[in-house]
Amino acid sequence: MRPADQLRDIEIQTGYLDSNPASVLYRCGRTIVLCTASIEARVPPWLEGKGKGWVTAEYNMLPGSTSPRKRRDRDGKVDGRTTEIQRLIGRSLRSVVDMKALGENMITVDCDVLQADGGTRTASITGGFIALAKAIAIAVPGSTVGNGPITDSVAAISVGLIDGEVKLDLDYVLDVAADVDMNVVMTGKGRFVEIQGTGEEATFDDAELAELLRLSKKGIAELTVKQMATIA
Amino acid sequence: MRPADQLRDIEIQTGYLDSNPASVLYRCGRTIVLCTASIEARVPPWLEGKGKGWVTAEYNMLPGSTSPRKRRDRDGKVDGRTTEIQRLIGRSLRSVVDMKALGENMITVDCDVLQADGGTRTASITGGFIALAKAIAIAVPGSTVGNGPITDSVAAISVGLIDGEVKLDLDYVLDVAADVDMNVVMTGKGRFVEIQGTGEEATFDDAELAELLRLSKKGIAELTVKQMATIA
Amino acid sequence: MRPADQLRDIEIQTGYLDSNPASVLYRCGRTIVLCTASIEARVPPWLEGKGKGWVTAEYNMLPGSTSPRKRRDRDGKVDGRTTEIQRLIGRSLRSVVDMKALGENMITVDCDVLQADGGTRTASITGGFIALAKAIAIAVPGSTVGNGPITDSVAAISVGLIDGEVKLDLDYVLDVAADVDMNVVMTGKGRFVEIQGTGEEATFDDAELAELLRLSKKGIAELTVKQMATIA
Amino acid sequence: MRPADQLRDIEIQTGYLDSNPASVLYRCGRTIVLCTASIEARVPPWLEGKGKGWVTAEYNMLPGSTSPRKRRDRDGKVDGRTTEIQRLIGRSLRSVVDMKALGENMITVDCDVLQADGGTRTASITGGFIALAKAIAIAVPGSTVGNGPITDSVAAISVGLIDGEVKLDLDYVLDVAADVDMNVVMTGKGRFVEIQGTGEEATFDDAELAELLRLSKKGIAELTVKQMATIA
Amino acid sequence: MRPADQLRDIEIQTGYLDSNPASVLYRCGRTIVLCTASIEARVPPWLEGKGKGWVTAEYNMLPGSTSPRKRRDRDGKVDGRTTEIQRLIGRSLRSVVDMKALGENMITVDCDVLQADGGTRTASITGGFIALAKAIAIAVPGSTVGNGPITDSVAAISVGLIDGEVKLDLDYVLDVAADVDMNVVMTGKGRFVEIQGTGEEATFDDAELAELLRLSKKGIAELTVKQMATIA
Amino acid sequence: MRPADQLRDIEIQTGYLDSNPASVLYRCGRTIVLCTASIEARVPPWLEGKGKGWVTAEYNMLPGSTSPRKRRDRDGKVDGRTTEIQRLIGRSLRSVVDMKALGENMITVDCDVLQADGGTRTASITGGFIALAKAIAIAVPGSTVGNGPITDSVAAISVGLIDGEVKLDLDYVLDVAADVDMNVVMTGKGRFVEIQGTGEEATFDDAELAELLRLSKKGIAELTVKQMATIA
Repeated sequence: MRPADQLRDIEIQTGYLDSNPASVLYRCGRTIVLCTASIEARVPPWLEGKGKGWVTAEYNMLPGSTSPRKRRDRDGKVDGRTTEIQRLIGRSLRSVVDMKALGENMITVDCDVLQADGGTRTASITGGFIALAKAIAIAVPGSTVGNGPITDSVAAISVGLIDGEVKLDLDYVLDVAADVDMNVVMTGKGRFVEIQGTGEEATFDDAELAELLRLSKKGIAELTVKQMATIA
Repeated sequence: MRPADQLRDIEIQTGYLDSNPASVLYRCGRTIVLCTASIEARVPPWLEGKGKGWVTAEYNMLPGSTSPRKRRDRDGKVDGRTTEIQRLIGRSLRSVVDMKALGENMITVDCDVLQADGGTRTASITGGFIALAKAIAIAVPGSTVGNGPITDSVAAISVGLIDGEVKLDLDYVLDVAADVDMNVVMTGKGRFVEIQGTGEEATFDDAELAELLRLSKKGIAELTVKQMATIA
Repeated sequence: MRPADQLRDIEIQTGYLDSNPASVLYRCGRTIVLCTASIEARVPPWLEGKGKGWVTAEYNMLPGSTSPRKRRDRDGKVDGRTTEIQRLIGRSLRSVVDMKALGENMITVDCDVLQADGGTRTASITGGFIALAKAIAIAVPGSTVGNGPITDSVAAISVGLIDGEVKLDLDYVLDVAADVDMNVVMTGKGRFVEIQGTGEEATFDDAELAELLRLSKKGIAELTVKQMATIA
Repeated sequence: MRPADQLRDIEIQTGYLDSNPASVLYRCGRTIVLCTASIEARVPPWLEGKGKGWVTAEYNMLPGSTSPRKRRDRDGKVDGRTTEIQRLIGRSLRSVVDMKALGENMITVDCDVLQADGGTRTASITGGFIALAKAIAIAVPGSTVGNGPITDSVAAISVGLIDGEVKLDLDYVLDVAADVDMNVVMTGKGRFVEIQGTGEEATFDDAELAELLRLSKKGIAELTVKQMATIA
Repeated sequence: MRPADQLRDIEIQTGYLDSNPASVLYRCGRTIVLCTASIEARVPPWLEGKGKGWVTAEYNMLPGSTSPRKRRDRDGKVDGRTTEIQRLIGRSLRSVVDMKALGENMITVDCDVLQADGGTRTASITGGFIALAKAIAIAVPGSTVGNGPITDSVAAISVGLIDGEVKLDLDYVLDVAADVDMNVVMTGKGRFVEIQGTGEEATFDDAELAELLRLSKKGIAELTVKQMATIA
Repeated sequence: MRPADQLRDIEIQTGYLDSNPASVLYRCGRTIVLCTASIEARVPPWLEGKGKGWVTAEYNMLPGSTSPRKRRDRDGKVDGRTTEIQRLIGRSLRSVVDMKALGENMITVDCDVLQADGGTRTASITGGFIALAKAIAIAVPGSTVGNGPITDSVAAISVGLIDGEVKLDLDYVLDVAADVDMNVVMTGKGRFVEIQGTGEEATFDDAELAELLRLSKKGIAELTVKQMATIA
């Protein structure tokens, strides 16, 4: 059994698709997310003429990613969970992009979940950042993390409180068992971007919060090392 | 100018509508939310026959609540922000309800914003809890907070980081100025239900997080006193 | 019991919202409608460049306005009754506005029903006119009713035929009992704008029609006096 | 030029379709409406088990019915005008049906406009009644107008006020020119079912109303004779 | 009983509507389709400025066209069958139009089925071509088939395999009985435009394919003669 | 350059996902389709109680599958091309399933295109059949092709006419260049299931049709060999 403070195995395959060089197949245990970043020489209408770019994200789970099969969102109503997740991914990625340095370009990061075993939103952020960095490196020659539009790296991890114990990187079984579920997004430099802690039918106190945050930081530091190794 | 650690003026009017005794007009500064709780003797299909109830919430801003006028959501696509907010309200209210004690009943808490000046989601939780408690008190004779389906009270407040200073209870002007925006939901007994801290185009460190949480607790303790006075 | 030819008590509160000075909380017995008029310096595409303005209306019932709770129109299909009502309100208000004098401006009058006890459409017209007049008075300095874009006032009332007797201003209980239901819209100068008389599963003859119209005129004359007192 | 009190030429072809014996091709001048009545041995959910039937109507204009071409309603939003018209047709037809005598059956009257030259809603009512009567005659052997589920006949006509003159049965050119437009629905026995008088950007007084009603009655009496001749 | 290689009776009435001179009422046995072609001096956005025109088609079945009544497509989701059919009609008609000779004009061919007894899609192509040719003849003086934008004629027919026998021009009863159903679209000059052969729950071999194609050609040659006689 | 009668390289990876054992990653040149088959112990409402099963298919292209990025179908309107393709896949798969032997079970075959380089619909049928066979082999022990619910295998290929030459298995570049595009679906026993030949802005004659069919048969025979090797 995996220790409470240990990440699942991570495997990152870049350039997975010929059709999109900024494509990343990101595996975290049994969770598999295909992240692709597409750049267009335009911005949303409300940003036109301001000399700034934009980064947005879309998240989707394929029908075969879960058992039983997940129904497609085809009735024109993207469900609330999907909406929340893709807004979170977009905000997280934008927190490390200098929009003026990006110029009037728009990048869409698509995160399609091929297999879901917990942690799909944090995998989407961690893998999506790599796709984003690749897309920018191609579009803005000479740009690297910290030099050009990308001011820092960003990664995310989940932590949870299960029967009074705090655990890092919840897979599906742990996620279902958790009384409190928290997603933490941090930059490579160790600053918080987002903290979303939720106790559905449960609550938590100060000491538990402190331990949840401590484990998150440990996990994100390890993910950052892997991201940097991949991008370099 | 309001001190950084002071709430806006709160005014709570219960029984506002004859058509719904569990109706509350909740004012927090210039923000006005009409909360109504409606009970039905049924549960959603996935809960049928389990001997448990359900609580859900809907959130909406009226066109006249903002200037310029806010367009209605009439094209069948509830926007992402609305979806996130009403899911947050629902989770927060469910955290203090014992669903078995509620029985196979479903309560919908509607939060309609008549005037929006920042903090509409936290006002909806704080006011919505009062409507919920009223509806349950009517449906389950003898039930009070801590006795019957309602296990605790719940309230919420926003805090923010503005030019390096932490401030409590952001109105619209402060919200726009904030680099980091955090919504905290806590029970009357002082336990966390939700923490949602977001730095859009900004980040925050440990010390700032600690101060944001300290002010939140102070504000929520004051709101809890007002809620209890109203319900009693 | 209210005499057959007597209106319900009317209470009109203007400037109800800080966010919109042209806001009116209109009460007619237990029916409560929040009317707000918002002006924009544009016209619909089909009116562009013609030197004329436009007035339109939107009508909505809040979930807590009825018991049992009314479901929100969120599936993209505004129901037929709502569509008919907001078209009627729009036509009625346009009948007393000189569109050339209004210039290329568009006014949207929102009528949100907080509590419904019959007569919501006629209350929306009568209260909506006051909001409209306020909005124009702010936008076009010096304009009053009869001087500037507003050529006359407009108000509306319902009448009905119940067990052979004609009654003025139907509340919900009377409305359900009515064999014939008629809504009449008239200007302050006493001219007809709309007559909509419907006998669902019933019919009416010439004498009954004459009496329905006589009572309508009496009611509208009284409403006009109240409107003028409010606007002045 | 047609005199002000004269109807357009009417041509009624019953049994137009082999697929539906209760089909009527109704021509009124250049306006052509295909009316079909379909009966099902079920009622809407809210009527189940009450021993009563229901009659409803749907109205639609074909793309080729106007010049320029009319766009189809295919985006899931039936426009407001269509909704109002089909509700009017349904109410009008229901006013002459004894729902208990109909039993738990539901009749849908479809009114598809092949060519539109004004008066499509009144043609739909007048022609739709014939289709309805045919469908009932087939389903309820021995039933005729006044004997069985159909208690009376119903027909409709438009009248208008043009440059101070009242005219009967407005075609498109007259309709556009009219300051006041009124649709009147009456039974064969001469009782009113609906009066819908509208002055968009115009108003009307008592004398004008009296004359509009007088001409309507004359026209409807003539239509009733034609309906009866067709049904017999 | 009709011989296996014989078409149903065809009746073609042009100029059926005053509102659209390019209107054709096409009957094939009991199947009746109203085809209208409408021309607009614009092209779809993706064709703008290329000096070419476009032809598109819409297909619809009226509620009364079948027994039992066919429900209208009013929920915003045109069903898959309708979509396939109107795409087929559009492609077929475009195959005989020289888009450069048409200039920057767009023609919409509407095919509304008044009565359906099998073969509605092929009737729509055959009748729709006549409407298209009429519309072009009016818009481009001097143009005839083979001279101007219309390079050839086009017609379509269905064939099927029933209990081992190949039959031409399937009506509804034959269509239901068919193991294999094939629609063939050909030009007047005898070239294939589309072949769509489908064996739902059945398959077919080379010899059967050859016989299906042979009968199709015979039928289309006869339809072409009728089209030419109508257009001339 | 690939000879005109040669297939692209095929690579078939079964059991690609842990979440679904009936998952197949099918590559045909640069086209990559993820096929998964999910079985449920229910049938569509119109098949209930008939002792028969059902097979249906859904097709989707991921945003990163094309360059430029393909927009998601999220507005509730699945586009016409997608609808046609998934109907074709479903019909093709059903042609080789004995629905009575399947019992009251429903299988959904999802075909998600990860990378699109022409031939995605034929790859979906060929790969989808393998996923379907795997799902049935798991659900119905002892079943193999020809023994149990699966009566035969099915595969599909595209052929085209380019500058007068017939070519097998069109990639994107060839597909764009083709004057005539034909998709052929055949069983392992060599019988036709579907023939869909389309000449958009082009036509074809008998000799060309014969050659298109000859090459199709050759390609499908080779695909069948690969399918059988994978399933065994």
